[in-house]
Order: sequence, then structure tokens, then C-alpha cells
Amino acid sequence: MSTRLSVAVIGAGYWGPNLARNFRASPDWHLAVICDLDAERAQRVADSVGGVPVSTSLDDVLADPSIDAVAVATPARTHHPIVLAALKAGKHVIVEKPLADERERGAEMVAEARARGLVLMADHTYCYTPAVLKIRELIADGFLGDILFVDSVRINLGLIQPDVDVFWDLAPHDLSIMDFILPGGLNPETVAAHGADPLGTGKSCIGYLAMPLAGGAIAHVHVNWLSPTKIRQMVIGGTKRTLVWDDLNPQQRLSVYDRGVDLSLQSKDTAADPRAANISYRLGDTWSPALPEREALAGVAVEFAAAIREHREPRTSGGSGLRVLSVLEAAAGSLQNLGAPIRIDVTETNAEVEDVKA
Amino acid sequence: MSTRLSVAVIGAGYWGPNLARNFRASPDWHLAVICDLDAERAQRVADSVGGVPVSTSLDDVLADPSIDAVAVATPARTHHPIVLAALKAGKHVIVEKPLADERERGAEMVAEARARGLVLMADHTYCYTPAVLKIRELIADGFLGDILFVDSVRINLGLIQPDVDVFWDLAPHDLSIMDFILPGGLNPETVAAHGADPLGTGKSCIGYLAMPLAGGAIAHVHVNWLSPTKIRQMVIGGTKRTLVWDDLNPQQRLSVYDRGVDLSLQSKDTAADPRAANISYRLGDTWSPALPEREALAGVAVEFAAAIREHREPRTSGGSGLRVLSVLEAAAGSLQNLGAPIRIDVTETNAEVEDVKA
Amino acid sequence: MSTRLSVAVIGAGYWGPNLARNFRASPDWHLAVICDLDAERAQRVADSVGGVPVSTSLDDVLADPSIDAVAVATPARTHHPIVLAALKAGKHVIVEKPLADERERGAEMVAEARARGLVLMADHTYCYTPAVLKIRELIADGFLGDILFVDSVRINLGLIQPDVDVFWDLAPHDLSIMDFILPGGLNPETVAAHGADPLGTGKSCIGYLAMPLAGGAIAHVHVNWLSPTKIRQMVIGGTKRTLVWDDLNPQQRLSVYDRGVDLSLQSKDTAADPRAANISYRLGDTWSPALPEREALAGVAVEFAAAIREHREPRTSGGSGLRVLSVLEAAAGSLQNLGAPIRIDVTETNAEVEDVKA
Amino acid sequence: MSTRLSVAVIGAGYWGPNLARNFRASPDWHLAVICDLDAERAQRVADSVGGVPVSTSLDDVLADPSIDAVAVATPARTHHPIVLAALKAGKHVIVEKPLADERERGAEMVAEARARGLVLMADHTYCYTPAVLKIRELIADGFLGDILFVDSVRINLGLIQPDVDVFWDLAPHDLSIMDFILPGGLNPETVAAHGADPLGTGKSCIGYLAMPLAGGAIAHVHVNWLSPTKIRQMVIGGTKRTLVWDDLNPQQRLSVYDRGVDLSLQSKDTAADPRAANISYRLGDTWSPALPEREALAGVAVEFAAAIREHREPRTSGGSGLRVLSVLEAAAGSLQNLGAPIRIDVTETNAEVEDVKA
Repeated sequence: MSTRLSVAVIGAGYWGPNLARNFRASPDWHLAVICDLDAERAQRVADSVGGVPVSTSLDDVLADPSIDAVAVATPARTHHPIVLAALKAGKHVIVEKPLADERERGAEMVAEARARGLVLMADHTYCYTPAVLKIRELIADGFLGDILFVDSVRINLGLIQPDVDVFWDLAPHDLSIMDFILPGGLNPETVAAHGADPLGTGKSCIGYLAMPLAGGAIAHVHVNWLSPTKIRQMVIGGTKRTLVWDDLNPQQRLSVYDRGVDLSLQSKDTAADPRAANISYRLGDTWSPALPEREALAGVAVEFAAAIREHREPRTSGGSGLRVLSVLEAAAGSLQNLGAPIRIDVTETNAEVEDVKA
Repeated sequence: MSTRLSVAVIGAGYWGPNLARNFRASPDWHLAVICDLDAERAQRVADSVGGVPVSTSLDDVLADPSIDAVAVATPARTHHPIVLAALKAGKHVIVEKPLADERERGAEMVAEARARGLVLMADHTYCYTPAVLKIRELIADGFLGDILFVDSVRINLGLIQPDVDVFWDLAPHDLSIMDFILPGGLNPETVAAHGADPLGTGKSCIGYLAMPLAGGAIAHVHVNWLSPTKIRQMVIGGTKRTLVWDDLNPQQRLSVYDRGVDLSLQSKDTAADPRAANISYRLGDTWSPALPEREALAGVAVEFAAAIREHREPRTSGGSGLRVLSVLEAAAGSLQNLGAPIRIDVTETNAEVEDVKA
Repeated sequence: MSTRLSVAVIGAGYWGPNLARNFRASPDWHLAVICDLDAERAQRVADSVGGVPVSTSLDDVLADPSIDAVAVATPARTHHPIVLAALKAGKHVIVEKPLADERERGAEMVAEARARGLVLMADHTYCYTPAVLKIRELIADGFLGDILFVDSVRINLGLIQPDVDVFWDLAPHDLSIMDFILPGGLNPETVAAHGADPLGTGKSCIGYLAMPLAGGAIAHVHVNWLSPTKIRQMVIGGTKRTLVWDDLNPQQRLSVYDRGVDLSLQSKDTAADPRAANISYRLGDTWSPALPEREALAGVAVEFAAAIREHREPRTSGGSGLRVLSVLEAAAGSLQNLGAPIRIDVTETNAEVEDVKA
Repeated sequence: MSTRLSVAVIGAGYWGPNLARNFRASPDWHLAVICDLDAERAQRVADSVGGVPVSTSLDDVLADPSIDAVAVATPARTHHPIVLAALKAGKHVIVEKPLADERERGAEMVAEARARGLVLMADHTYCYTPAVLKIRELIADGFLGDILFVDSVRINLGLIQPDVDVFWDLAPHDLSIMDFILPGGLNPETVAAHGADPLGTGKSCIGYLAMPLAGGAIAHVHVNWLSPTKIRQMVIGGTKRTLVWDDLNPQQRLSVYDRGVDLSLQSKDTAADPRAANISYRLGDTWSPALPEREALAGVAVEFAAAIREHREPRTSGGSGLRVLSVLEAAAGSLQNLGAPIRIDVTETNAEVEDVKA
């Protein structure tokens, strides 16, 4: 690789500076411009990374033929028009989570990118942490066996958001991680969401998502803004081993337990009656793999560049962002139906999944 | 109190010896006889508590006018006939959990006891641990404020039971505790149950129960036989404080956090639009009350005697056992409906609740 | 092995019942008699294990030719006369810790046993727990490399003993374990003890023992009766790996860290100046071996029988009990000298060590 | 307060940028100049705080009459000449830990500052963390009662320093904190140091410091560069309560235990024989005070300005830095004497202590 790709960061709010800093530091990228309607805000970000041009015109940025890609870090409701405009201008796009504020808009973005042969990447930053990369690798290598359940808890005393409920605020992390680590992506047929708003804030502050998976497995997410203690834990049970990821324990973030239940069917007769099957219990060792220290966003920048150069879907593709949106939208439907399970709309989603994971 | 009450222990299997030992050690009780169809098994229990008469005839025991009460520790499917017989013989009854194997049978038992003015007590042993007694007291005293949520996790690598699923095996603990500590008992209008049997054992090994409570609150239970790590934790969020009970941390079983979210509506206008309300955050001290060391079953024996002597419902009444059954039965219905929320049948339950908690 | 060995338990106080129960349950042993000056106390223990003869005469017991061995669980100051009498009567002996109340008496006991070719075993029960057995095995197999340091902390709100200080009460556990797991036994040249009695109870309630080991290594023990929290932790640092034993964490009692510092001397020049040496850091995986569930005292009974049958020193020999006494006695001397390091008297000790560990 | 004090930061290495940033952000201070022999390095620090003048001449800086104070963040061996020069130029001085590389030099610095009526402050940053400030307050308020023991553990896989051993690298933190929180400062009569260098690096990598305190109490420090796990814990036992500070547990950094041992002497007779005294045990509640989020160095800047304006000793005075040096120097002496306790030279120290704490 001899030449750097050129990128514009759109949006100089909360997340933009992090993107700018990482693109600036990346050998793959040339950070061309910081674009924000608020010139002063753009300038502050530009200064913080050592003097980069700024612009207040998205049109100018998109019209610049020297720019290969844009990184969109604007409010979610603006993702759809900005990303579509960028794609139509021939730019590769990475977009902050959530991909869009509605599933259908996300689907349109994914279709547009595919039609144009451009990379559309979801900035699911968490997926590029050393812990999640290791989990994905262990599952892909068959180290856990077939996945039996994924249980994720993400609770703490959180800021009650003015515009979104606890599902849209916190669950995208869990869902995008599940999509990243599960061999077939996150593809539940239905979602049941149970929320509570006991303080009367107008939106759920406590939430549970139950998602049956293929083969009798289940994924579950617990998010909560009202917990006085902070927990960030995901348990991934497999037929061979079970992994516990405790993100708040830097001394042992990942623990892989060789403990579990084995069920061996011995003949046709027992197969006919599972209760007659032989159940045995494993109580083996625990292993905690060492993890490198690495900033996740640096990995995001590397992957975005690689996908462009290799003309392939990025590991966290627009399709993965769309699957997350599909679950969130079905969850919202379930909430309105008092927790009834809702089928997930997969019209656009599955096609994409096949592309990505094949 | 001058004279002891006389009790027979029916069933010398797993739980019977514990009941026998505690009745034997209690100053309130005279342990009269151990009754089991298996004479040898009965004798072993009798020997272990220092020589008590044994019997293999339930009829003989019930016909003995010197016996005031029976403690039933036989398999769940036999609770109904044995308890009814005992009540009809004029005996007070304490019965191991679950109260019965079907809600309707439990209701019949409760009605029979009430009609005869006899005590029917559910042996919800966990409720008499120092930790749960303290939680009940703190809530009753208003120390936590109004309850916003109760989240209970009870997971470990558990023995897969041949006859019951993980809900019926583990959740009775969580449900009976919730019934015990919540001011109005556990009275969700609906229950949604999500189970998974990824090993194909023929019954759920992983389970989630979501139960909306009055006033927008929610109760949730996570039970799991396939977890390599053991967790016994209940978080009880209140408007004033939040309590975390970690039963596996003997050095700090209960932690009460003066942390939370306050929502103050300032005028009619903001009341109309909750989003305009004032939200503030408390980050106060944590407090962990000292707990006495005390065996829970000793407290069960004390309470059973006191209820008989004071002609009152015990703290864990037949009605509370019935409420637990109602939730379990609705959960089973929800499971069959793929997680759809099911209304709880309260025909017999509520009347009882009023009695007990009034 | 066709016939059982016959054992008498001497002393029916705190520890005697545990010995009686384990000898009774062991296929290696015939529990012949419980001996105590207090006939009633002896009878209670005899009853609790299902009816064993009792005696109030030590002489009678020792005169009985059918008895092969005695287990002494009497107060420490009586160990010396009882054990000597038993050895002189030709009995093998196991004796509760500490071996004796003075090092010289312990040495006399060890010499007597050796002269007569009898087994004298120290009941260092902790050494037969699955955790300590595993640690010993890992060190013996070279898995940790050369030992660099052993740091043991044993603190909690403890009962202040009327007759012994915190060193004699708690440190025997740490010292006997160190003696058991270190390849050459516990053989510091000097001991420095720092104690404090800030409440004025007349003896140390807080204690620290520093013991330089061969090759620049160090062993250290912290014992404390005044700590509100309970800690039972030993860290064993090796050139290859470091092991942490947290006895209060049943879910992960042992953790083996492949982390550490490597020092590679590259030439004569750097060897001359260690500061020029190459230092590198390993940050590898953590591994927690599964441990079986097994009662330690059952292992004690097995080892005592095996040592007798195989005419060999037991794993926790009288010599190991003597090494523990040597350290305790030197520690007492250091305390009287305000913490000055005291040389350990090894006159009788080393000979024994060579026997045992050769 | 209307005008800002003017400060020069001397030394633009590891710690200088932190000092510069905090003085720059403080309303009490005007950051006048960054001074370093390496102009480029000085410029980088100046740029990072938004453009401050730089200088490569200490003489010029000290000759500038507009500068009120200097903050010295140069290597320890240069503290003595730089600080003396600054004091002679009439500047107030704050100096990074350790105060000097030898106790005697530190004493000269303290004497010089006192003679000139200038503030000499030790930058014991840890003392200004919310946790340590709270501990000091609780002890000063008598909440813990009289102090019985202080036990500090500071271990992790640390970088082996080329020039100092583990005592000089890590223990200054523990010692300066003890000096800060103990009502009379840290004034042990003797110090015993036990070190080990099992890798042959030429200096201690593992260290223990035992320091008897007045009234039978004891302070102890364990520092270790070879531990695979990281522990930062201090236990402070008092007659009324005991405090545990676990700096790596952000959810509960401080825990105050109302647990302990009470010793009540009931009469002259029992006073004569402490063993006859009445010992009782408290098992009360645990309390964890909420701590504000605050950067410690900001508090350092505030305190330095206040001490100058109020013509008083700062909370972490030169005298406290000197007491830390006295212990370290005595510890070095103890190490050379194989762990023999060494008396602390207090010729200059105590006078200062009286000033500061009176």
C-alpha cells in the first residue's frame, strides 16, 4: 500500500473528535477536512488534531474528487440524507451507530451502497476491542462449540436520554456485538421486549429483550438506567465451553470455562425420549486469555481502509447495522404490544447477511 | 407459653431430616413421630435426631389426637391428598414448596384450611434467612421508597431435573421471596416466560420471567442451569434507595445504595409533558447492614407455632404459596404460547391476599 | 491390603470428633477406641460415630497390643508426654498441630520415632486440601519454575486466644503449607517477626514474619486478628509463572498467571553489571485448574496408613512439624528482640529434612 | 482574592506536563513559563497547554521578579540545588516526590524555606485524591477512634527501575499517605525493611516495611514489582471502626466497618492482668461514603496557593516530605543490616512536625 485514502469527518460533536484523532493517527488515512455546520466547533476539533482544514458545507466536501470516504458522526435522524448524498457522490461511508433512525431508511442506504459498489460500514466500535475480537475468534474456531445462549447485562446509573429509551440507548452495543460474534450474525425470528418506566419519564428506563435463536438457543439483553451498580457482562454458553466477558474487570476480562452439561443420545430409543438420554457434567479448568492493549477505533480505521482496498464488505457492514435496526424496531413493536413477541422483518436483511458472512 | 405443640414430620427424604432436626431443637415444638412409607428411612431420620417414634401409616398419625400439626415433605404431586387429609383430621399443616403441583389443587387446599380455621403454611425457607427478613423490614419501613423494579438472577451449573423444568426448579425461590418482601405480595397482572432448551433435554434449561407490576414497575427473574458461574443476586430499586442482595458474598450480603434518579414535576405544564420534567441524580453513600447468623428453618418453626397460637396467617401463608403457583402456571402457559404474556388467574388468590396482608 | 489398621483417638475435644469421624469412614482404618479423661465427653464422640468403645485410661489404650496407632488431639502442652509414651509403647502416632509447645520437645519426639522406626505424622490438615495438593504438584513439576517469593495473608476478625498470640494461633497453617509445597521444605536461615498489641491484651494480635530463603527468595506471612475483612490468600511467584491461591473464592481458588519478568544476562559483561541485563515482561494467559471436591482429613487418614504400610515418612512428617516449631520459636525470639532477625536452630531439623525430602 | 499567583514549571519530562495543565486551568494561578534545558521538550509542553512562554535558563526564571513560585519536576538528584536556588531567589516551591535523594539534603531545604518564611510544599499528589482526603477527615473527626494499625499493599507487575529499588519507587506513596492521615504524622521510632532480589537485578524487587508506632500500634507496607495481580489496598484499624481503602474498586473505594474487638478493663485487678480483661466483639454495619469526582492535582494547586496566601505550612509540607525521606533512608539502612530495625533520625524532622501539626 503506497498511498493513503482521504477521509472527511462529518460532524464535530461528541464522537467526531474521536474519529478525527484516529484517522489522523492512522497510516492508512489522510484526514482531509472536518465538516460541521458550526464552524467554530469544527475548528476546535481541527486544532485538537494539529491543524486540519474545516468546512461548513457538506456539498463542497462531497464535491471534492480527492476525498475517497466520509465518516458520519451526526445525529441519527440525519444519517439517512447525509449517507445517501455521500454514496451518490461516490464516497465510501462509515456511519456512527445506529445506522439510521428507522429500519427502512437503513435498508435504503444498504441497497444504495451495494448498487454502487461502495463500502458502507457501521461504526460498531465495541466490536474492535481486543475482548470482542478474541470472542469472535474463539467462536469461529469452534472453541466454544455450538452456541446455546448469549446473555448480556448492561446496567448502571445512566443519564436518562431526552429522545431515546434505554433500548435504543444501550442495546445497540449488545446487539451489534452479538451480530459480530455469532457465526451467522444475529438473526432471531422474533423479539419480545419488556420495558418499564416506573418513574413516569415517558420512555422505558429498564428493558429486557428475549430473542430465540435457531436450534433452540436464546439471546437475551438486560439494559437498565436505574441500577446503582455498574455491570457490563456477557455470558456465551456453548456445547463445548462457556465464556464470560466481564468488561469491568481489567485483570480478567475474559474467562473460558470448560464446565457444562453433556447430553449423549445413545440409541434410537433414547433419541425418541430425550429424558432417557445420558446427562453428564463437566467441571474442567478455567482459562483467561491475555488480551493486547489496543484502541478499538484504530482497528475501525484499519478495517474501513481494508474493505475499500479489497472491495469487500467490512466486518461491521451496513448489513450488520441493519440487523441491529431490525431488532430494535421489532422490539419497539413488542413494547407497544405489551411484550408480545414480534417477527423480525428480514426482507432486506437476509440477503445482506448472506453476502457478508459467506 | 407453657406447653409445646406436637408435630409429625411426613416424608423422610431430602428435606424431612432438616425439618425433623429443627422441630426437635425448637422450644416451641415436641417432635412426635417421623412418618414414611419406607420404615428404614424413617428410622434413620429418627435416629439422627436422637430417637423419635416412627410410623409407616399416615392414617395412624392423623388419627392421633395428641398431634397438633404435620409438616409435609413428600413429593409435590402428593401434597394435595396428604394436606387435605391432614386438614380434614384437624391438623395444622406446613408444606414444602411448591404448595402443590397445580394451582387449582393449591387453591382447594387454601380454601379447606380457611374453612376449618386451620393454619396452612408454605415452607418458603429462604424468607426466614436474616438477609430476606432484613430486606422485608427495610421495604416495609419505607427505607427504599416505592419499588421501581426487582431483578433476580439465580444461575449456576445445575442438575437437570428429570421431572421439572428450570422455572419450576429454581424460580419458586425468587417468586416466594418477591411475594414476601413486596408490600402487596407478588401480584403481576401478566407473566411472559421465555425459555430455551438448546440441548434438547425436553424442557427449558434457561428461563426468563417478565412480570409488570402496578404503577409501571417490573419484576424479572433469570434462572439458568447451564451457567458455569454461580450467581444469586437480587436488585430491588426504589424511589429512595436501591438494594443489592448478593447471597454469595458473605462479607457483604446486602448493600443499600443511596443512588438513583429523582424526577420532580414542577408544574401542570411539565406534568403534561414528562420530558420537560426535572431529572436529577443522587450519588450518595452505600450502607451494608450487619446480619445476625441464624438458621432459617429455626425461624420457620417459630413462625408456624406463633401462627397457630395467635390464630393468624403465617408470614408465608398458603396464599403466598398459591400466588407462586399462579405465576408458575401462567409462565407455563406463556412458554406454550412462545412467550406471549399470559394473564394470571387470581380467582382464589386475591381474596387470600387481602386476608394475609390486611 | 487386606486388613485394616487399628487406631485410638486420644482427646475428645474440638478436633477429636473430626479425626474419629474420618478414621471411622476410612477403609484403611478400624477405629478401636475413643480415649479421654472425661468419660462423658468420650462417649458423646463415640455415639456420634455409631458406637465405638471408650476409655479413660491412656495406659490401657497403649497397653492394648491390637492397637497399631494413636491420633493425639489433646492440648499442645500435653503432646510431648503422650506422644513419647505412645512411641515407647510401639504405636505409630499422628499429632494435631502444633507438634509440641517447644521446639526441643518436638525434636525429642522426632528422634524417638526415628530410633524406633515408627511413623510420627503431623496433622497438617490444610496440606491435604485439593488446592494445596495441586500447588505442591505444580511446583514439583516445575510449572512455576524456581520460586521467587511466597506471600501469605491470613487475616480476619479472630477470637483473641487466652494462651497463644496470633503467630502461634494462625501462622502454623501458613508455615506448614509452605513447608509442604516448597521443594526443599521451609528452611529460612533467619526469621524476623514484627508484632503489635495495640489493645494491650498482653500478646500480639497483628503479626508479620519475614523469612529470607535460599537464592535471594523470600517468604512472608501476615496474620491479623483485628481485620474486619477476611482474607486467606497466598501468592507464589516463580521464574516461569505465578500462582495465586484465594481460598475464599470457591469459583476460582487457584489462578496461575503466565505473567512476569524475565531477566536474560547476555554476556560476561552484563553479568558483571546486572543493571545492564535485558529485562522483558511476559503478559500471558491465566489458567485456573479445576479442583476435585474432597475432604482433607480423609486424605490425612489415607496418608497415615500408607506411611505405616510402606515404612516411610508421611508427607507431613514429624520433621515438618518440627520445622514449623523452629520458625515459631525463632519468631518468638525475634519479637523479644524488637524485630531483629533470629537464626533458626536447625540442629535436629536439617537431618530430618534430608531424610524426608531426599 | 483578586490577583493570580505566577508560577514557573521547571522540568518538562514525565510529570511536568501534568503540573502545567493543572496550573493553567487553576483560577489561582498564572502559568508564566515552562523551563527545561531541552527547548524542544519545553515547547511541546507549552503548546499542549495553549501557548505559554518557554525558557532554557533556570537563572533567568529565578531572576524574574514577577514569578512568585516554582514547581520542580526534575530528576530527584537535582531537587536539592534547584530548590535551594529557588528559595534563595525568594520563590515559593513545590517539589515532586521524593523531596530529595538524601534525607540530609531534604532537611537543608526545609530549614532554608523556614528561615526565609517561604512555602516549601511536597507534591504528594495522592493525598489530594477524594479517597485520601476523606480518610484524613474521618480519622481527624475521631470516627475510627485511636489508630491500631495501618497495613498497605501496593503490588503489581511493575517496571523494574534502573536507578531505584522497589522501596524508593513505590513506598513513597504509602508513606506520604500515612503521614497525611495519621494525626501526628508518620513518626515510627524504628523501621525494619525486608527486601528480596530473587532475579538478581541488583536491587530489591519485593519489599516489606514494618514500623512500630506509638501506643503499641504498627504500620506496615508491602511493595512488590513481581506480582501478576494488581493490588492497591490500605487497611486502617481503629479502636472504634476499621477502614478499608481499595483503590481499584471504583464502585466502593472506601468501606468503613463497625466491626472490631473491644477490651474493657473492669478493675485494678484485671488491669494488672490483661488476660483477665473482658473482650467483646462488634459485628456492626458497613458504610461506604460517596466520594466526589475530582482531579487530585487541581487540589494540589489550590493548596499551594492557599498556603502562600495564608502564610502557613501546606498540608503536605516540606516536613512531610522529609519524614518520608527519613523512613526511606532508615529502611535502606535496615536492608544493609539484613532487616535489623533501624532508629529513625529525627533531628530535623520532629521540630518540623510540631510546627506543621500543632
